[in-house]
Amino acid sequence: MQQPSIEWNTVQKALKPFIHHCPMMESNSLNEMWNMRIRFKCENFQKMGAFKMRGATYALHQLSEEERKRGVITHSSGNFAQAVAKAGKSMGISAMVVMPKDAPQAKIDAVKGYGAEIIFCEPGTANREAAVDEWIKKTGRSPLHPSNQWEVIVGNGTAACEIIAEAPDAKGIITPVGGGGLLAGTALATKQLAPHMQVWGGEPETMNDAYRSLQSGVIESNPAGSTTIADGLRTQLGDINFPIIQQHVDGIQCVSEEKIAFWQGWVWERMKLVIEPSSAVALAALEQLHPNFKGQEWVVIISGGNCSFPSPKAL
Amino acid sequence: MQQPSIEWNTVQKALKPFIHHCPMMESNSLNEMWNMRIRFKCENFQKMGAFKMRGATYALHQLSEEERKRGVITHSSGNFAQAVAKAGKSMGISAMVVMPKDAPQAKIDAVKGYGAEIIFCEPGTANREAAVDEWIKKTGRSPLHPSNQWEVIVGNGTAACEIIAEAPDAKGIITPVGGGGLLAGTALATKQLAPHMQVWGGEPETMNDAYRSLQSGVIESNPAGSTTIADGLRTQLGDINFPIIQQHVDGIQCVSEEKIAFWQGWVWERMKLVIEPSSAVALAALEQLHPNFKGQEWVVIISGGNCSFPSPKAL
Repeated sequence: MQQPSIEWNTVQKALKPFIHHCPMMESNSLNEMWNMRIRFKCENFQKMGAFKMRGATYALHQLSEEERKRGVITHSSGNFAQAVAKAGKSMGISAMVVMPKDAPQAKIDAVKGYGAEIIFCEPGTANREAAVDEWIKKTGRSPLHPSNQWEVIVGNGTAACEIIAEAPDAKGIITPVGGGGLLAGTALATKQLAPHMQVWGGEPETMNDAYRSLQSGVIESNPAGSTTIADGLRTQLGDINFPIIQQHVDGIQCVSEEKIAFWQGWVWERMKLVIEPSSAVALAALEQLHPNFKGQEWVVIISGGNCSFPSPKAL
Repeated sequence: MQQPSIEWNTVQKALKPFIHHCPMMESNSLNEMWNMRIRFKCENFQKMGAFKMRGATYALHQLSEEERKRGVITHSSGNFAQAVAKAGKSMGISAMVVMPKDAPQAKIDAVKGYGAEIIFCEPGTANREAAVDEWIKKTGRSPLHPSNQWEVIVGNGTAACEIIAEAPDAKGIITPVGGGGLLAGTALATKQLAPHMQVWGGEPETMNDAYRSLQSGVIESNPAGSTTIADGLRTQLGDINFPIIQQHVDGIQCVSEEKIAFWQGWVWERMKLVIEPSSAVALAALEQLHPNFKGQEWVVIISGGNCSFPSPKAL
C-alpha cells in the first residue's frame, strides 16, 4: 500500500499555535559511553507532557466546520484523552472521554481539569467500545483513536520534521512502540523528507505484538494478562499503523522490564529529566543496538513525562 | 566593606571550557497562575548536576602553578566535593576530600567516581576540621571551602552573568540560601552588571540563620539539631558571604518544609525537571513574594538536581 505524499510544512503550520517546539538535549557521559552522539527530542516538555498533543491537535484541526460543532469522543484514559481535552479547549471544540469506572483518580482529575466531559462505563474493552458507540449515536460526535487514525499519525510525524531540520546528520530516529502511532508518524515523515535516515522502534518484550507482527506479516495480539511497567504502551498495534510500519520501519528491538526501569532511573538521575517508563523503552532499545551504530548520531524521541512521584521523604 | 570590581568577562572565559551554559525554561501554567513571567535558570543541567561546578572550577583556576602541583583539599561531602573532584580531574589537579565515616555510600561512590582521594574521619564538625588541618600540614594542599571563599563566590556569580545577558528585562533573581555562596555570587554580579535588578534569597524557616543574621546584623547560627529536607542547605552562613549579602541582597524570604516538598513535586510533575529540594526553596519563596511582583519577569536559579529516586514500581 502506498501512502499519499504529505505536505509536512502545512501540517506543521497548522499545529504551530497549539504545541511547543521542544528542545533536544544530550548527555556527554552517554555519548562517551556508547561512542555515539545521542540526542533526546524532549516531548516530555510538550504541552500536557507528551507527544500525543501533536496527533490530537491535528485530528481536531482536520475536522469540518460541522464536525467541530458536534464535538469529538475518545475512549483513551491516558495521555491522549488529556491531549484531546486540552486541544479541544484551545480550539473551542467539545471533547467527551469514555473512561472505565475504576480509572485512577489522577487521570480523571487531569481530563476534567482540561475541561472534557467524562462518561463512565464498566471496565473492559467491549464495554468501553459499546459506550463509545452509544454516545456517537446520541451526540453525533466524531470518534478519535489514540493511535490508529490517519490524522493522529500525521500529527505525530511533526516531531520527526523538527528533528530532521535540526539534526540533518543523524543516521536514524528511535521511538517507543505501543499502538504504533508515534512510530508510524515518525517513519512516514522521515522516509519522505530524509529517506537516508533509519527509523527503529523499541518495544517491551512482555507486550511485543508489533515486533511479532513484523515477523509474521499479520497483526499479532498480546497474550491475555500480559503487561509492562511502560503503562503508555499497554495497547495493541492497529490496522492503519501496521502497513506503514511494515513498509517504512527498519526494525523493532524488544527490551526487558529491568532495562526499562534502569534507563528511566538513569535519565532521571544523570540528565535530570522526568520521563515516563514508555520513553525509557526507546533508550533501552538503543542500548542493545548501539554496537552497530558506533560513531553515528541518533535521535531518541522522549515520548512523555507523565508519571507520579512519591513525596520527598518527610523529616 | 567595598568589594573589588570584578572582570566578569574574564571569569566567564576562564570557566567556559569546563562548564555548561545551561538553558532557561519556563511554565505557561505557572506564569498564568502568578501573573508573572518566571524563568528557571536550569543549573540542574550543569556538569555534575549543580551550580557548585562553577565555584569549584574557578577556585581551581585561580591557583598558582605551585599550588596546582600540591593539589587541593575540602571537607564538603555533597555537591561541592563532587564538583572539586570533577573539575580537578579535567584540570589535572589532585583533589582530596575529607568525609565522615558514616557518609552515605552514594556520596562516597560519586566522589570516588570523579577520581578524588577520600580521607575518612570521625563524624562531627570538630573532627572534620582537625582532619583537614592535619592533611594540609602533611601534604601542603590548598583548602577549598564550599561557600565561604572569595573565588568560589565569584565563580558562582557567573550564572547571574548569563541570566543578565539573556533576560535583560528581568526585575530580579532569586536563589536558595544555605552557606550563602550562590546568593552572594549572584548579588555581586547582578549589582555590578545590572544594578536595577533585585536579588532575593529563599531559606528554609527551620534553618534560617541567614535571615536572622540580616535582621540582627551579626552572623547567627542554627539551633543544635535543626534540619531541613533541603539537604544542600544544612549549613551555616560564613563571614565572607555575610557582608556581601548584607550590602547587596534585597531580602530573604523563609519558607516551610511543606512548601519545599510541594514545589519540588510540582516542578517534577508539571515541568518534567528533576530538582533537588534546595532548588524548590527559591520557588517556594517566590510563591510568597509574587503578589508584590505582578506583571514582572523574575528568574529562579534552579541550583541542582542531585537526589535519589526510588525504582519505578516493579510489576
